[in-house]
Amino acid sequence: MSLPTLQNDTFLRACLGQATTHTPIWLMRQAGRYLPEYRATRERAGSFMGLATNVEFATEVTLQPLERYPLDAAILFSDILTVPDAMGLGLSFQEGEGPRFAYPVRDEAAINQLVVPDMARLRYVFDAIASIRRALAGRVPLIGFCGSPWTLACYMVEGGGSDDYRQVKTLMYARPDLMHRLLAVNADALAQYLNAQIDAGAQAVMVFDSWGGVLAEGAFQTFSLAYTARVLARLKRTTADGAAVPRIVFTKGGGQWLEQMRGLDCDVIGLDWTIDLGRARTLLAGASKSLQGNLDPSVLFAPPEVIRAEARRVLEAFGPWRSGHIFNLGHGISQFTPPEHVAHLVDEVHLHSRKMRPAVAP
Amino acid sequence: MSLPTLQNDTFLRACLGQATTHTPIWLMRQAGRYLPEYRATRERAGSFMGLATNVEFATEVTLQPLERYPLDAAILFSDILTVPDAMGLGLSFQEGEGPRFAYPVRDEAAINQLVVPDMARLRYVFDAIASIRRALAGRVPLIGFCGSPWTLACYMVEGGGSDDYRQVKTLMYARPDLMHRLLAVNADALAQYLNAQIDAGAQAVMVFDSWGGVLAEGAFQTFSLAYTARVLARLKRTTADGAAVPRIVFTKGGGQWLEQMRGLDCDVIGLDWTIDLGRARTLLAGASKSLQGNLDPSVLFAPPEVIRAEARRVLEAFGPWRSGHIFNLGHGISQFTPPEHVAHLVDEVHLHSRKMRPAVAP
Repeated sequence: MSLPTLQNDTFLRACLGQATTHTPIWLMRQAGRYLPEYRATRERAGSFMGLATNVEFATEVTLQPLERYPLDAAILFSDILTVPDAMGLGLSFQEGEGPRFAYPVRDEAAINQLVVPDMARLRYVFDAIASIRRALAGRVPLIGFCGSPWTLACYMVEGGGSDDYRQVKTLMYARPDLMHRLLAVNADALAQYLNAQIDAGAQAVMVFDSWGGVLAEGAFQTFSLAYTARVLARLKRTTADGAAVPRIVFTKGGGQWLEQMRGLDCDVIGLDWTIDLGRARTLLAGASKSLQGNLDPSVLFAPPEVIRAEARRVLEAFGPWRSGHIFNLGHGISQFTPPEHVAHLVDEVHLHSRKMRPAVAP
Repeated sequence: MSLPTLQNDTFLRACLGQATTHTPIWLMRQAGRYLPEYRATRERAGSFMGLATNVEFATEVTLQPLERYPLDAAILFSDILTVPDAMGLGLSFQEGEGPRFAYPVRDEAAINQLVVPDMARLRYVFDAIASIRRALAGRVPLIGFCGSPWTLACYMVEGGGSDDYRQVKTLMYARPDLMHRLLAVNADALAQYLNAQIDAGAQAVMVFDSWGGVLAEGAFQTFSLAYTARVLARLKRTTADGAAVPRIVFTKGGGQWLEQMRGLDCDVIGLDWTIDLGRARTLLAGASKSLQGNLDPSVLFAPPEVIRAEARRVLEAFGPWRSGHIFNLGHGISQFTPPEHVAHLVDEVHLHSRKMRPAVAP
């Protein structure tokens, strides 16, 4: 399979710390409910999983935000819970209630039964990646992703979302041996999953540690960070044609653990809005890490001039450097975001970062 | 009114950085739903507000955990939302859904109408404090409390709890002038409220900044920290009989802002479980602040030996010092906590901290 040359490699260059003429931007959950065209496709698909498991639909919604905005990367439309679903936990999405597993993993017997699933069960994901790459035709790179072993464990044990993580933390504190077993299976499955995404055409990969931040100091390092590191250690470094595949790790609420995260074998650290990018740069000095983030998604509810001012604030906080920053939100875009507001954000990031560039020597 | 001498002043001494023979412990939400005797009183009261506004009931439930466990402090049974209720927002608690305001504050007109309420409307709180002091008869000190100006604003604008803070953040980003007006009224009301609690007999006061941690870096300092500081600046420093009244500030998720919080005019900083107490001590070195926290409440779901080990871990993280630590959870105790587990926690904190004491010179 031969694919066209990449026309806009700004995102990949920024991930790898190479100089760029502007700061690239993409948005977590950029293909999503805030877009009327997404809601229309979702309607046709019938359900979230109907959308995610259908190659044509997944391709269509992945490209929708790129038709509207000059974003610098595409991200596979999928969900982090495809992997436990392939393990046999029976994933479904209740309207307005989020994900549910028919068979949560709550005891020793259930954990002992868990195995790395046959990747053939996730073929719809890899097929979608190949299809999206063809549809993108080299416009921008495509990001693949997975959840972190700990974040998946939260859903697998709780059986869905949670506001107190009672079941999963009870298991962790009462039976750390079982939790380690569960996390090891998850890590091995996720490494295979991301490698298969890279084989299928993903040009960068991201690990979403959405719930690492609910852990206590000490527990985070043991039960989240260590298993994210295990995934990273097993990842392919390059695509079949030899291009480097940048690895991004995002821990929501992880700003205070940056000194521990600097040792991660990844290229980019994603940050939420609670930490100043300049301070993060200082904490990671010498670690050869790019930063991704970190606008509060709620800024997008404000009028355009406020959005532009806040975008400039984030760019200035990172500083006038020629590389190392990928602009993003600090969390997924809200379904209530006015789509026209996103255009102002993307425009301002491109405009202002170009203006900032000449201020320093190369 | 003359009250008996305090028999156990360990909590107050630890707040003020004075040496103690053991590390004092109390638990956020220690009078609450995990106790069957609380649920029985709540049943008799008919509703949460029926409980909170009745002096006898409020006294009864405040003392319930002290009958079970040798805790080192009592905390007034009440709710942070009594103040906006007194402002006329119409507070109610829906079963299983949390607080609701009948009249949320969403626009300029509503904000312009807000004023510091007549403290006579909160007399039930001050009467409860006087009654609890009599019932305590000097066993342990009584803590009064309020929410932070920002945290109250979240509920006042959202009209209840929220998982994205969309309304309040939209107001903050779009109309910061209105948000500042709202926060100023809140701060002035809360200072009067805490001073009236001190007059009524509160021997320490605590500001719960439960939602400071959802703010972006920069916004936290401007919209939360600055107004907590405004409350602190107006507080009485001593009771009518000249005893110092320690001031505690707890920002959930505030661990990464400790360097900014060190300037707060308070005696104690409360911490959640995401930061190591030893690291917090280092960050606050020279600031004359005691620390309160910071066990993950989920530890209480684990078996007794795990609870005891985790309690020791928190004590050891703080270090073998004779003062400056008040043991607590990093958040309110869960309603699902087995009450007998709490006994193990309190016992271990007392036992182990006594053992740690002789290890250092005074």
